[in-house]
Amino acid sequence: MQVGVLGVATTKFGELWGVSPRQLVRQVVTEALAQSRLELKDIEALYVGNMLSGILGGQENLGALFASELRLTCPAFKIEGACASGGLAFYNASLAVRSGVFKNALVVGVEKMTDHKPEEAAMGLMGAGSDSERQAGATFPALYALMARVHMQKYGTSEEEMAAVAVKNHYHASLNGKAHFLNQITLEQVLKSPQIADPLKLLDCSPISDGAAAAVISSGLPKSIKPIWIKGAGVATDSLGLDRRADLTSLNSAIAAAKTAYREAGITPKDIDIAEVHDCFTIAEIMALEDLGFYEKGKAGKAVLKGETTLGKGKLTVNTSGGLKACGHPVGATGVKQVAEIVTQLRGEAGKKQVTGAKIGLAHNVGGTGAVAVVHIFSS
Amino acid sequence: MQVGVLGVATTKFGELWGVSPRQLVRQVVTEALAQSRLELKDIEALYVGNMLSGILGGQENLGALFASELRLTCPAFKIEGACASGGLAFYNASLAVRSGVFKNALVVGVEKMTDHKPEEAAMGLMGAGSDSERQAGATFPALYALMARVHMQKYGTSEEEMAAVAVKNHYHASLNGKAHFLNQITLEQVLKSPQIADPLKLLDCSPISDGAAAAVISSGLPKSIKPIWIKGAGVATDSLGLDRRADLTSLNSAIAAAKTAYREAGITPKDIDIAEVHDCFTIAEIMALEDLGFYEKGKAGKAVLKGETTLGKGKLTVNTSGGLKACGHPVGATGVKQVAEIVTQLRGEAGKKQVTGAKIGLAHNVGGTGAVAVVHIFSS
Repeated sequence: MQVGVLGVATTKFGELWGVSPRQLVRQVVTEALAQSRLELKDIEALYVGNMLSGILGGQENLGALFASELRLTCPAFKIEGACASGGLAFYNASLAVRSGVFKNALVVGVEKMTDHKPEEAAMGLMGAGSDSERQAGATFPALYALMARVHMQKYGTSEEEMAAVAVKNHYHASLNGKAHFLNQITLEQVLKSPQIADPLKLLDCSPISDGAAAAVISSGLPKSIKPIWIKGAGVATDSLGLDRRADLTSLNSAIAAAKTAYREAGITPKDIDIAEVHDCFTIAEIMALEDLGFYEKGKAGKAVLKGETTLGKGKLTVNTSGGLKACGHPVGATGVKQVAEIVTQLRGEAGKKQVTGAKIGLAHNVGGTGAVAVVHIFSS
Repeated sequence: MQVGVLGVATTKFGELWGVSPRQLVRQVVTEALAQSRLELKDIEALYVGNMLSGILGGQENLGALFASELRLTCPAFKIEGACASGGLAFYNASLAVRSGVFKNALVVGVEKMTDHKPEEAAMGLMGAGSDSERQAGATFPALYALMARVHMQKYGTSEEEMAAVAVKNHYHASLNGKAHFLNQITLEQVLKSPQIADPLKLLDCSPISDGAAAAVISSGLPKSIKPIWIKGAGVATDSLGLDRRADLTSLNSAIAAAKTAYREAGITPKDIDIAEVHDCFTIAEIMALEDLGFYEKGKAGKAVLKGETTLGKGKLTVNTSGGLKACGHPVGATGVKQVAEIVTQLRGEAGKKQVTGAKIGLAHNVGGTGAVAVVHIFSS
């Protein structure tokens, strides 16, 4: 069965103190439906991606909550898989459409994080980690710092290479009016920013953000809309904590998820024009570029530093939205925003950040330190 | 595509202070796989139903967590929909198999509640309710008491009729070695038990329990096993809180979910031999029997009091497991346990609680006060 995306939307990402999750969701749903030329009554299933509403706000049952808010009475589900919640919600919605049970499914990713104290948000996020990591007092910057250090030792990856990821993603975000950060930064600024968890500095880390994104998936594709096709998808898991990983410089879950997605799509990494990858920390983008098969191990950082993945420079452009680093990382929204960015690019509607002639795009969303990863491949 | 259940398992339900969620999951997975004559390597997707691990314990990402624990690297998801989490996980796993992407999916429902203070568990559960209900200090007994009071006023339903639900379910649980409560109770004991939220008394309420359940869903059905077929399924949603309901004596979500499931199965309520219904409070079982089409409005309580739904008495036997009331209600496990009970009955393997000649069974799982409901119909 051919399944495509009809419409997508994202809110502005950032510190949205004056806006409730319900308002964020209503905004993206209205926009995504309009783009799909559908109405709420056409929606047959709702999939919500969210991680922290329960831990930080005591509110669960978000499938029913947002269905209720939208005055839908159709099946509604919340899918949670840490920072991959949005991508996993999209994945399950697309399976549901592929099953033939629903024609049109609505995916919403949403997170409200900045209403809480940063230390509360950090502890909430550690809900994605393992008991032993929490008990050791580790937070995600510390865990990714471990991975960065091993990557540096094994492949000679430098702090400049990591910093170049942040510089590129801030540049892309400066072209994206909806990004959390609209300012460009320099290598020097990244390298001189405060240490968070050596070798990661403040500007190597994605922010805590608020935001929402939506996508409409359909098997009943109207002639009046040019759908973007879901060509391949893969999900894979790995140990929850780092302690059981044989290698800290790759995410096995991402490698396996990508393999499944490439096989389903019948393509290779060389065919990809644009990718949104999960750059929760700059080292994560470097690992992603390698795990997804775009670069050999140890080569991705150098390529980013050379500008190969910057808009308008090379064959493959990465994180035109600004990525998690600069577009922002409202956890449950991130995976759906990645899809929204790819779909918008493949339609040629990405404005100042448009990648000329982009035909095939990939979205890569990771939960925890790689305990779960989901990869989708789209084509126009 | 024909999709069936190959194997099921439940742990003992109750206060399992000495056992971790991981141990509970390992136990049911081992049992359900053995019954399915499959090994872990045959499992292609894992669906976990859980509500409270984040709110009460700070642990999210349970799909990856349990995949990691079981040394699986396949796709893994957590589905949350309050007290319907287990049923919704089962529903999504079966959609995933119907999509043709996976042949064998494993569903696990699990909840650990008694390690926490009862007031913490009660507040956690209110994560299924609406803002206004939480702000009003309402808990679920209070909300179901409202529904009970209206049902009494509108249909003359009596406290004796409600108590009869508890008496029946404790009788059934006394035949189920895995139930939380193994003791039989009398109408008088229920009626004289302490008031919780008038007209509901202590013995009208389901307990807070620990437990897990598992089921293996497959489209590749070996000849050596008699599968139980998934004949129909439906999910529907309604307003999160009671404030927007036109009628407090029915759950529209349950009515709509049942309608979809009956249509898909091509049967009517009269065809059902056994049902596991969501009796979080005794009034909920009475409403369920009416919403599912087994009895006209106002007639179900009288039928239960007459013993029509008791094992060995009438055409339809309800909650042979003991239901939420007496088998126990480890939230995320409940919907999967219902499936396990129906499958075991339809195989004729339910021991002392076996319903003779049961051919078609129904499972009815509700989240919140009916914000979401899921109905499955099975046949041998």
